Amino acid sequence: MARYGAQFGPDITFLGVPACDLDDTSTYDDADVVILGAPFDGGTSHRPGTRFGPQAIRMTDYLPHDGSRPSLALRTDGLRDLVVYDAGDVELPPGDIETTLGRLEAAVETVTRSGAIPVVLGGDHSIAYPDAKGVANVLGHGRVSMIHFDAHADTGDIEFGSLWGHGQPMRRLIESGALRGDRFLQVGLRGYWPGPETLDWMAAERMRSYEMTEIVHRGLQECLTEAFGIATDECEGVFLSVDIDVCDPGHAPGTGTPEPGGLSARELLDSVRRICLELPVVGVDVVEVSPPYDHADITAALANRVVLEALSAIARKRQDERDGTTWDPSRPLLDRG
Amino acid sequence: MARYGAQFGPDITFLGVPACDLDDTSTYDDADVVILGAPFDGGTSHRPGTRFGPQAIRMTDYLPHDGSRPSLALRTDGLRDLVVYDAGDVELPPGDIETTLGRLEAAVETVTRSGAIPVVLGGDHSIAYPDAKGVANVLGHGRVSMIHFDAHADTGDIEFGSLWGHGQPMRRLIESGALRGDRFLQVGLRGYWPGPETLDWMAAERMRSYEMTEIVHRGLQECLTEAFGIATDECEGVFLSVDIDVCDPGHAPGTGTPEPGGLSARELLDSVRRICLELPVVGVDVVEVSPPYDHADITAALANRVVLEALSAIARKRQDERDGTTWDPSRPLLDRG
Amino acid sequence: MARYGAQFGPDITFLGVPACDLDDTSTYDDADVVILGAPFDGGTSHRPGTRFGPQAIRMTDYLPHDGSRPSLALRTDGLRDLVVYDAGDVELPPGDIETTLGRLEAAVETVTRSGAIPVVLGGDHSIAYPDAKGVANVLGHGRVSMIHFDAHADTGDIEFGSLWGHGQPMRRLIESGALRGDRFLQVGLRGYWPGPETLDWMAAERMRSYEMTEIVHRGLQECLTEAFGIATDECEGVFLSVDIDVCDPGHAPGTGTPEPGGLSARELLDSVRRICLELPVVGVDVVEVSPPYDHADITAALANRVVLEALSAIARKRQDERDGTTWDPSRPLLDRG
Amino acid sequence: MARYGAQFGPDITFLGVPACDLDDTSTYDDADVVILGAPFDGGTSHRPGTRFGPQAIRMTDYLPHDGSRPSLALRTDGLRDLVVYDAGDVELPPGDIETTLGRLEAAVETVTRSGAIPVVLGGDHSIAYPDAKGVANVLGHGRVSMIHFDAHADTGDIEFGSLWGHGQPMRRLIESGALRGDRFLQVGLRGYWPGPETLDWMAAERMRSYEMTEIVHRGLQECLTEAFGIATDECEGVFLSVDIDVCDPGHAPGTGTPEPGGLSARELLDSVRRICLELPVVGVDVVEVSPPYDHADITAALANRVVLEALSAIARKRQDERDGTTWDPSRPLLDRG
Amino acid sequence: MARYGAQFGPDITFLGVPACDLDDTSTYDDADVVILGAPFDGGTSHRPGTRFGPQAIRMTDYLPHDGSRPSLALRTDGLRDLVVYDAGDVELPPGDIETTLGRLEAAVETVTRSGAIPVVLGGDHSIAYPDAKGVANVLGHGRVSMIHFDAHADTGDIEFGSLWGHGQPMRRLIESGALRGDRFLQVGLRGYWPGPETLDWMAAERMRSYEMTEIVHRGLQECLTEAFGIATDECEGVFLSVDIDVCDPGHAPGTGTPEPGGLSARELLDSVRRICLELPVVGVDVVEVSPPYDHADITAALANRVVLEALSAIARKRQDERDGTTWDPSRPLLDRG
Amino acid sequence: MARYGAQFGPDITFLGVPACDLDDTSTYDDADVVILGAPFDGGTSHRPGTRFGPQAIRMTDYLPHDGSRPSLALRTDGLRDLVVYDAGDVELPPGDIETTLGRLEAAVETVTRSGAIPVVLGGDHSIAYPDAKGVANVLGHGRVSMIHFDAHADTGDIEFGSLWGHGQPMRRLIESGALRGDRFLQVGLRGYWPGPETLDWMAAERMRSYEMTEIVHRGLQECLTEAFGIATDECEGVFLSVDIDVCDPGHAPGTGTPEPGGLSARELLDSVRRICLELPVVGVDVVEVSPPYDHADITAALANRVVLEALSAIARKRQDERDGTTWDPSRPLLDRG
Repeated sequence: MARYGAQFGPDITFLGVPACDLDDTSTYDDADVVILGAPFDGGTSHRPGTRFGPQAIRMTDYLPHDGSRPSLALRTDGLRDLVVYDAGDVELPPGDIETTLGRLEAAVETVTRSGAIPVVLGGDHSIAYPDAKGVANVLGHGRVSMIHFDAHADTGDIEFGSLWGHGQPMRRLIESGALRGDRFLQVGLRGYWPGPETLDWMAAERMRSYEMTEIVHRGLQECLTEAFGIATDECEGVFLSVDIDVCDPGHAPGTGTPEPGGLSARELLDSVRRICLELPVVGVDVVEVSPPYDHADITAALANRVVLEALSAIARKRQDERDGTTWDPSRPLLDRG
Repeated sequence: MARYGAQFGPDITFLGVPACDLDDTSTYDDADVVILGAPFDGGTSHRPGTRFGPQAIRMTDYLPHDGSRPSLALRTDGLRDLVVYDAGDVELPPGDIETTLGRLEAAVETVTRSGAIPVVLGGDHSIAYPDAKGVANVLGHGRVSMIHFDAHADTGDIEFGSLWGHGQPMRRLIESGALRGDRFLQVGLRGYWPGPETLDWMAAERMRSYEMTEIVHRGLQECLTEAFGIATDECEGVFLSVDIDVCDPGHAPGTGTPEPGGLSARELLDSVRRICLELPVVGVDVVEVSPPYDHADITAALANRVVLEALSAIARKRQDERDGTTWDPSRPLLDRG
Repeated sequence: MARYGAQFGPDITFLGVPACDLDDTSTYDDADVVILGAPFDGGTSHRPGTRFGPQAIRMTDYLPHDGSRPSLALRTDGLRDLVVYDAGDVELPPGDIETTLGRLEAAVETVTRSGAIPVVLGGDHSIAYPDAKGVANVLGHGRVSMIHFDAHADTGDIEFGSLWGHGQPMRRLIESGALRGDRFLQVGLRGYWPGPETLDWMAAERMRSYEMTEIVHRGLQECLTEAFGIATDECEGVFLSVDIDVCDPGHAPGTGTPEPGGLSARELLDSVRRICLELPVVGVDVVEVSPPYDHADITAALANRVVLEALSAIARKRQDERDGTTWDPSRPLLDRG
Repeated sequence: MARYGAQFGPDITFLGVPACDLDDTSTYDDADVVILGAPFDGGTSHRPGTRFGPQAIRMTDYLPHDGSRPSLALRTDGLRDLVVYDAGDVELPPGDIETTLGRLEAAVETVTRSGAIPVVLGGDHSIAYPDAKGVANVLGHGRVSMIHFDAHADTGDIEFGSLWGHGQPMRRLIESGALRGDRFLQVGLRGYWPGPETLDWMAAERMRSYEMTEIVHRGLQECLTEAFGIATDECEGVFLSVDIDVCDPGHAPGTGTPEPGGLSARELLDSVRRICLELPVVGVDVVEVSPPYDHADITAALANRVVLEALSAIARKRQDERDGTTWDPSRPLLDRG
Repeated sequence: MARYGAQFGPDITFLGVPACDLDDTSTYDDADVVILGAPFDGGTSHRPGTRFGPQAIRMTDYLPHDGSRPSLALRTDGLRDLVVYDAGDVELPPGDIETTLGRLEAAVETVTRSGAIPVVLGGDHSIAYPDAKGVANVLGHGRVSMIHFDAHADTGDIEFGSLWGHGQPMRRLIESGALRGDRFLQVGLRGYWPGPETLDWMAAERMRSYEMTEIVHRGLQECLTEAFGIATDECEGVFLSVDIDVCDPGHAPGTGTPEPGGLSARELLDSVRRICLELPVVGVDVVEVSPPYDHADITAALANRVVLEALSAIARKRQDERDGTTWDPSRPLLDRG
Repeated sequence: MARYGAQFGPDITFLGVPACDLDDTSTYDDADVVILGAPFDGGTSHRPGTRFGPQAIRMTDYLPHDGSRPSLALRTDGLRDLVVYDAGDVELPPGDIETTLGRLEAAVETVTRSGAIPVVLGGDHSIAYPDAKGVANVLGHGRVSMIHFDAHADTGDIEFGSLWGHGQPMRRLIESGALRGDRFLQVGLRGYWPGPETLDWMAAERMRSYEMTEIVHRGLQECLTEAFGIATDECEGVFLSVDIDVCDPGHAPGTGTPEPGGLSARELLDSVRRICLELPVVGVDVVEVSPPYDHADITAALANRVVLEALSAIARKRQDERDGTTWDPSRPLLDRG
């Protein structure tokens, strides 16, 4: 059976990695990573456009689309040292969020069951529910922790009369039992949402949410170190969900609900690298890139680099584990080899 | 009960006309026209953003928002000579098109039942189904003809696995029996969609579709005159549905599926005026304005003027009928009085 | 004394024509045309930005800035066959419209008194008052007619509590006696301003305003021919005032108060050429170009071409009068010689 | 008498807070804060557009416009825990800066006299003169200190031949005696203006100006702490004036005179919060937001958040004073309660 | 040997038509049409960006990329009724125009020799030299006429010290003997370039150039009919070269040297259709689409439609010749069948 | 002989400094600094547009173009305390990179031989080869060290089949012997280029490349201090080459190959100041500013400030050497004098 391809525009793969067909296991049974596009913005509460996120994240790069990206910093090639396929987009009806979430959960579960790490390109953040649940369905409910970069807690209950939307996936994940509230680490929250009632629910679920004033006061590295300890306690793996709006709008204007005062692009890339070097990452999504609001493709480029940083660091982690080496950022680039 | 207001952004009315509350008949029982916002883009097959159409159409104007707009050309004030209210937006869940269409149909039907003409600000074109059906539910199925300005026939059957979307409302309207296929007049079609199978269905339904090469060859005025004859044959009223993409992308870039080679803004305004002066218009929608793709608000301004042109001409028609006068474009402006 | 230069940005001249200093007559006493910049947007009622109009009009062209522009159509070089200087900007305080208008009137009058035609680059349309009055001060009040391309009549009385602004210059010109109301020809009016009271004043002044529905109905050429007859009756010269918003926003998005349904760029250029070929033009202004709202410089490019079309046609008119020739658009380009 | 409303566009209030009418004291006599719009860009020396600042600051937010904004960080609702009204725009003639400044000073004074804190949404920075003077007229000349975030000192003498403009308000304030030079704290200065003569005047007035190299060298917190000491010495209250160009153009592109090398959005928000938590703020303005130069509304969103950060912190300060509590950023968000 | 693919971005084909490899004849020996990308802007004299033209023209369409486009107007599918392949981009070094032109000429010649019609997606107009010469190399020098839509004659001699550039290809073609000057038909010229010396050279070569004032005066259809007579006199085939700047900047802002006053998009599409229906077209290029200056992709969409209009009309011509039918634009769409 | 002037647009100088003519030594024989424009983008591998860099860098500033810029921080006027001329653009054929590089090398060498410091405004980074080589031709091959701010090492070998391009100049400089590999200091590298082979070549040449993870880990100041030691070892002077893409795309979107995770604008300005205060700078270039991709001119403004920061610091260094003073950033601005 033929691969579905792209829901919008030409059928391309992430920077030219080989395509696979989710319905044909033989096309990806050796995969370390399978990329999925989730071109859906039917869950957004404000500016839409993330339906074009997968296309933008796949193709925004000035280098040749040759399926190779040797990391200067890590000295690995995340697209070559790992076996990476791109399964194309999951076909998602824009006006039917429940069908959408179901299809995506099935696709993510299929990838996880194959032994590969799913990397899902959003799409709005409503997809975090099927992304993380699809993984937990295989690894065990309650066995996967979440590290969640975002300006928003995404723990709302009902919005526009619906249980489903980009402000609610984290609540649904905890309510469903797929993930434990007390293994939920949120980084970068700020602004004026949600209100006290929801915060009380989050506290009751024992979530750990690092708001920006805490991050500025204590330092990002210290907060991350603390979070890593929680994330690996009694859990098999970590799901990394990156909402690009965790960054300041100056660094990521192309998003639906921009909240001033966020991380710099550098801080996000450094954090993603640290997570993927130090923790057992079992799934990733990168969401809320909205090309119609982007300028000069800077948000799409950042999301592309978040994916590459994750893949490079996963590759380096495996290499270090195999070779007994350790990555050292204090060494000069040309001595890293 | 309180009026719902705006789904996105501040609660404003079209150029400052008085607000009404759809749930309180007394707030609009003297209305000639009630404006409704339909901030929904869950039905679009490509570029989203029309959820911000109602806001943009309501507020894009450089004149004071004082609820008055004296037409230079027609010498009537469409907002004062008619009694016009704005009921705000109908709350529409972005990811649930079936709920959306139902809510909107009920709202339009409520307006029509009150005796007012509904003017619906889209939103993507999937709303034409509830807009026209809501009117026909009151005036009688098969008793309302449709004049439909669009680059696209919007007669698709199933898209992304769904019966509902912005490429399908006209088929659903005919299939439902609300409107007759042979009283469906389409103006401005062009491009590469739909394919032969759908065209055959349209021909079988005896729709009359004016493609741009016919319009260029025969002249727009002649085509309109012919269409007017069909529209008024055995029908009580005319629904006017204006997809802004009937205009050339140079005149209306801010839309989801722009098709080069369309009408000029001038031609659209002149056509809308002629329709509302010469035909018994019972409902209007203006759709597919997508602000994220607009530039310098030119598409939103055009849609705002489509609404005003329609209201001004409806007002002039009533005045001419009352006074026995006739509007004459060959008279100098300052002699029109 | 030194030439003032540019109020904003570098001191440049229109496409590289020689500079002159208004305070030193010897620098322009052989001029056919003197260009003045009026970088003022303190009179605008909505979107500002026309302060950057003079700079944009002077420099928006893809050809070398060499002070030469041979017209393909007219086979003259408006910048070489005429003696053209650019006096730079008149220094205009953004927050003081009365001082501004006074300074500009003095500058225009100085140019006219030297025997040259002033060509003023706006700026918002409030400058039409000093532009036309400065000319009439020399040629005689009541002796200059006005051909005014605009979406708006600009005959308002008081706006934001002030007599001065870009919606009022034409009224002030007539009230001052500088220009006769019955020698005021307006082309391209449309939309929803001004209201009946102002239109009554205009009618009482016997202005002749060609609204777009009349232009479409009768044809632009016929309207122009009729207007030319009025303009030359008992008048010595014609002032041509071109508000770029006479064009449709699709052709001129970069302006402050865009009104859909206007002329095409082609129609404007053809009209300007006809006016300058057939009538005794004694002053020109090109106004309301607002670069912050422009895209890809298309509005600035159009305004630049309006200036060049006027100068080319003035040059051709003088050449035809000298040589007894006539320009014939039906001849092939390469036979025009 | 009717509230004036909005000078440009629809009559809205800041995120939906209740409206009040400045001419009717009863509509705001219980106010803690009254918001005023100052839609004026007639004082700007370069890129205009700040006339649309009040509208943009009021409506740029992705959350519902419901008059409530619970701060995640501070756990107060600045719009609910304080009584906040929006008095709409003060009508300001664009081309008449002296009338403008007079009207605004009267409006600010009226608010202050009612006991409320005026929060003025600019508009260009020329409004700082009436904003701070209006407050000092009530609290006493010389009794209010100024904390001024800006890239520019705004202490120019004469620009374009005028004493009034966005580069001069701070000089005028000191010259007028309303504010003391030695209680003027400037944060974020940089670039190439003003020149030595003006700096000498500033030194003679004993102003304290923190240029960016000092801020980088010593640290922003240390500089603020030092400034707070000065600000509260012999003064009753502090006026906080935030020119959005204090931030780097990457974080605030939508402004008139962007100067590279400024604060990050995060640093500005953290500073505003600290000021409003630690000092007796008696007036605020947020200026120089120019929507035509903004991208994806990031500058307007930042300014909106500056207002909210200030209001949230004022609310928290009052709550802490009442309850004897202290805000502690090192506590986890979900423990702050 | 492997197909080269895309020089910039992902390797895609025009709307999903099958790929071929120019070095492997078997991959396209049944082709009616072979598409080539020429991603080169090293020849432009002003705004660059056309290097991204091939990518933009291939992918700018809101319909699925399925290699099928049934024309509503012509009732043929230009991508299915003809055998169309896309050979990808020819690799062109940006800083070496002579190598570039040589490589492209060889590629076009290869396509022509295979019996297919080359359709070249530019790139700047310097590629017209290799495009038309590559065809003439096969069909015979002097045996191919040229219909050239453009604002500019492109007959310059030396620019920036070079014989090669986007302003010179037509002169080089005639000088080389590949094309006859007296079989060169230019449509849409206007503006201020080239000067008299070059026009004299053109006249001496007996080129026939339709300047816009002639087109407006005589009518576009009459000019085209006359041109068609010349084009088919003593020539075997016609090369159609479409510079998108033949259209007005309002319809095609995304180009390097926009000249106000051009054709509408509708006029261009109607002309292209007539040419391909009535004349023996042997090669096509579509050039000067510069995505960095485009807005909402309207220029790229127009260029995409120019290609489709040409292919649809070529298909219809072959069908009419085969079936003895005639296309009739006066018939209703749904009767065309 | 006449100065060539500007290749694109009007002939202006950097912020109004006096012009000089490179062919007439007398026009600049007292120069401390001569500015050259290199409007060339024929070497770029991705987004073009840097041909408009020199114009944008020269004119992007909101202050008067009066040839004076007193630095607030350094209390010198880099344009007045130094003798600075602008020689205009070197004429560079866009499609001929080899001729381009030769012409530019000659021009830079001419400036250096005159005793002035050349400051070259790019253009793409391929110009670093002629810029640094032109200086080394005079000061001695191997006697000039390089401090190179960039996201990219620019040490590629062959790209698009050519030895020349913006990814290769540093390799060519070292291979040519003009500069020593072990006196090459690179700051800000990151991302996924070049690959291992090129890194091995760089290591073999003993280049010192500070990748961003090292910079974050060790601190920028420490890295710079270390680099300064290397740069001054056995070298007479330092060439400073600033690729604007060293900054994060949030701070510098207007560039061809943006790589997320870079320096802030503040960090770049602080670094440039330190270099020019502490090291013997003998040449500067500022490259890769691409206006078509810029927003609100923020990238051009940053590049303008990089030039001013360099000139101000050079002036301050000379003044400190002359007066025995030292610049101290811990002193309050108004005490610096």
